[in-house]
Amino acid sequence: MTYCAALCLDEGLVFGSDTRTNAGIDHIATFRKLYRFGVADERVIILQTSGNLATSQAVIQNLQRAIDEAREVNLNTVPTLFEAAKLVGECSRQVAKEAAELAGSNSGFTSNFLLGGQIKGQPPALFTIYREGNCVSATPDTPYFQIGESKYGKPILDRAITPATSLEQGLRALLVSFDSTLRSNLSVGLPIDIAIYKTDSLVMPEGMRIEADDPYFLEVNRLWASGLQSLLGEIPPPPTTFYG
Amino acid sequence: MTYCAALCLDEGLVFGSDTRTNAGIDHIATFRKLYRFGVADERVIILQTSGNLATSQAVIQNLQRAIDEAREVNLNTVPTLFEAAKLVGECSRQVAKEAAELAGSNSGFTSNFLLGGQIKGQPPALFTIYREGNCVSATPDTPYFQIGESKYGKPILDRAITPATSLEQGLRALLVSFDSTLRSNLSVGLPIDIAIYKTDSLVMPEGMRIEADDPYFLEVNRLWASGLQSLLGEIPPPPTTFYG
Repeated sequence: MTYCAALCLDEGLVFGSDTRTNAGIDHIATFRKLYRFGVADERVIILQTSGNLATSQAVIQNLQRAIDEAREVNLNTVPTLFEAAKLVGECSRQVAKEAAELAGSNSGFTSNFLLGGQIKGQPPALFTIYREGNCVSATPDTPYFQIGESKYGKPILDRAITPATSLEQGLRALLVSFDSTLRSNLSVGLPIDIAIYKTDSLVMPEGMRIEADDPYFLEVNRLWASGLQSLLGEIPPPPTTFYG
Repeated sequence: MTYCAALCLDEGLVFGSDTRTNAGIDHIATFRKLYRFGVADERVIILQTSGNLATSQAVIQNLQRAIDEAREVNLNTVPTLFEAAKLVGECSRQVAKEAAELAGSNSGFTSNFLLGGQIKGQPPALFTIYREGNCVSATPDTPYFQIGESKYGKPILDRAITPATSLEQGLRALLVSFDSTLRSNLSVGLPIDIAIYKTDSLVMPEGMRIEADDPYFLEVNRLWASGLQSLLGEIPPPPTTFYG
């Protein structure tokens, strides 16, 4: 399983991806699911992926080859991020279709993607790209997307994230969202790849990898666990009618 | 969809069930999913259900009829709660099998159940009953069960519930778990049925229904939302390496 989330905030974009893949619970490996494309000072594109790993990797390879071979249409030439998302979607649909034809089976070959970034002269944007190849853009009403094992980590994002949320607070909420997911589902695992893009910087984030012994993430884990217990205790006692 | 959760604590048992059923998003109704059986001063049995509503209701009817007709084996005569859980499982499997045979289709007719309570002279117990008819008992390591739309509300239970958790704190955690689920999934809805059983009381709880305007539940909702925001803000700022 996989968990990826991305936030589209006024201050910028925050991306997080776990790195665990599993084919059955006894076949677990670490794979990068966060990829970066772009042109210095002109565009930054960050791509996250969940679903079939072979399809995801083939899509990334094909997108990179289109850039390397300087094809007319590639992630570094498309005029908008919407076109970039459509390109990823078309590529993903094509790879999954070919795999299904070769296998003589129709299921299990699809992937989902999140694509976010900025092209010079345009606002930052974030898209979720469905397995069918179509895509939806983040909006002020829905400023974040998740793919993969998304439910455990959704409540904190639903409560904490608005476009006006700062990058710092957004990053904290993202880490708590991962912490909740890691704790409730073994098939999502550390390390976590993080990337933060500041609006209008057009600087490709180096990104950073949170390993199992990361002192800050351990501190988030500890503070959140104890804080939730305290917070529960601060809720007034339920009325006696509840015990009827 | 449905969300039911039950906690097996040293002080007693806490049950919560939403009441929303839907066949498609435009066909929504309110149905009770929490049922009580028992014999005064001798046994208390509380049953919660998710899955196919027709199957769930038929199972409850059959269990009640066995009691009304004073059949040799019924929920009020079985010697242990484990036997009670097995009886529910057998009944559930039988009803689902008959429905599938009549429909000529094998899917969509199954239900899950949670069964908790106490029989005089025995400790309280809680079981989750699978659609296949078999069951698992709560233990000190896993003192709670959920059925239905369980993922959104799992992280708070994972963090807050141990057997030593008080009934009061357990009830707060259960309400927060419902609050998170209601907020993140429209197909789980108010009102919520709550029932609390105190260990060794052998008193059947009346139970209470939390409606949309319940002042205490609204307060939990408000305090939790603002508390989470504050708690996030209390986490120290991420190191600059995260912004690399």
